[in-house]
Amino acid sequence: MLCPKPSKGEQTRERILDAAQAIASREGLEGLTIGGIAERLKMSKSGVFAHFGSREDLQIAVIDDYARKFLDAVFFPALKLPRGLPRLKAMFENWLHRVQFVEIPNGCVFVSGAVEFDDKEGPVRDRMVAVNRAWQGEMRKAALLAIDVGHLNQDSDPDQLVFELYGVMLSLHHDARLLRDPRAVERARTSFGRTIGFCASPQGAVPAAPAAAAQLAAA
Amino acid sequence: MLCPKPSKGEQTRERILDAAQAIASREGLEGLTIGGIAERLKMSKSGVFAHFGSREDLQIAVIDDYARKFLDAVFFPALKLPRGLPRLKAMFENWLHRVQFVEIPNGCVFVSGAVEFDDKEGPVRDRMVAVNRAWQGEMRKAALLAIDVGHLNQDSDPDQLVFELYGVMLSLHHDARLLRDPRAVERARTSFGRTIGFCASPQGAVPAAPAAAAQLAAA
Repeated sequence: MLCPKPSKGEQTRERILDAAQAIASREGLEGLTIGGIAERLKMSKSGVFAHFGSREDLQIAVIDDYARKFLDAVFFPALKLPRGLPRLKAMFENWLHRVQFVEIPNGCVFVSGAVEFDDKEGPVRDRMVAVNRAWQGEMRKAALLAIDVGHLNQDSDPDQLVFELYGVMLSLHHDARLLRDPRAVERARTSFGRTIGFCASPQGAVPAAPAAAAQLAAA
Repeated sequence: MLCPKPSKGEQTRERILDAAQAIASREGLEGLTIGGIAERLKMSKSGVFAHFGSREDLQIAVIDDYARKFLDAVFFPALKLPRGLPRLKAMFENWLHRVQFVEIPNGCVFVSGAVEFDDKEGPVRDRMVAVNRAWQGEMRKAALLAIDVGHLNQDSDPDQLVFELYGVMLSLHHDARLLRDPRAVERARTSFGRTIGFCASPQGAVPAAPAAAAQLAAA
């Protein structure tokens, strides 16, 4: 057997993490309590403590778990595409897909956590910042590669691009979740096309997703 | 005397609201409790209840008070400028100024409240949505006027523009408050120039704020 069956302890840890994810998506990381998890799973508090030594450790584990799932869905599949705009567009399309089908219905620990921890100090904030910087760093790297291969203009500013792409996703979260605007996903796709179109070299106008390609042509 | 002195009751109400604003900016609207306010102001809980019948009423009063201050700082002064891009740019510059000097240091009830209430139902969420829609509506109106007077292209989509401007501000909040990136304000200004530049007619390239004008010229 290539993949050994997880131990009972590992299974319990996994169940605790899943319950914590569900609570954190709805109530925020600050809505997480060891007591709340224990009640949800009909476990004792000390049973939860045995796997996560403190509430902070649990919050950090949730952030790491969320980041892993996010990268598995959004980033790693895009690495199979050629460097440049195909990869950058795939990252965006995967992200949009995840927001549409996972984060809009369930909430996003990164979006709510950014607001919960922006005024606080400590290890949970530090981890939130670290995973955020790591993801922005991967987007930046993908933008730099797109400049290198000539799909984006040489004078494009990758940090500016990341700032704008992140803003598109935050606006999508806001309009889809708070305002429940069904047109938000299409607007996000249009914005992505414009943002990339602003930096795209003539060579960079390669079709990928149909909607994005139409925007590039219009830009 | 043109402006009558506020009554003692009005003064107390004002003190309660100020304390509630301070707590809500840091801890979020859900961090507000009647007990917390009473403790901060060394009042009895029943004293606070006499002015705000419930925690929900207090949360709604904070949203209304925040919205009034926001519009006084950002929107109304811009109405003195001519319709079209001068007014739209003034709205953005006033907004940027407020974010930079008020919201980045102290937090923003709209940004945190959007995340706190996106999964909840009830009158606080409803008020949050209403004030948000009202502000987005004013931006939309300013964009429509800019189309009418020919500063923006006739086929510009004002809803798309509002979506993108809101995203710029959310990204600014995120990068300035969570990541503490000192370049976030300048990036927001650059994004605004690009966003407007995408829709601007040749006639629309009128200088207003120097930085925004430089971006328009580059767009």
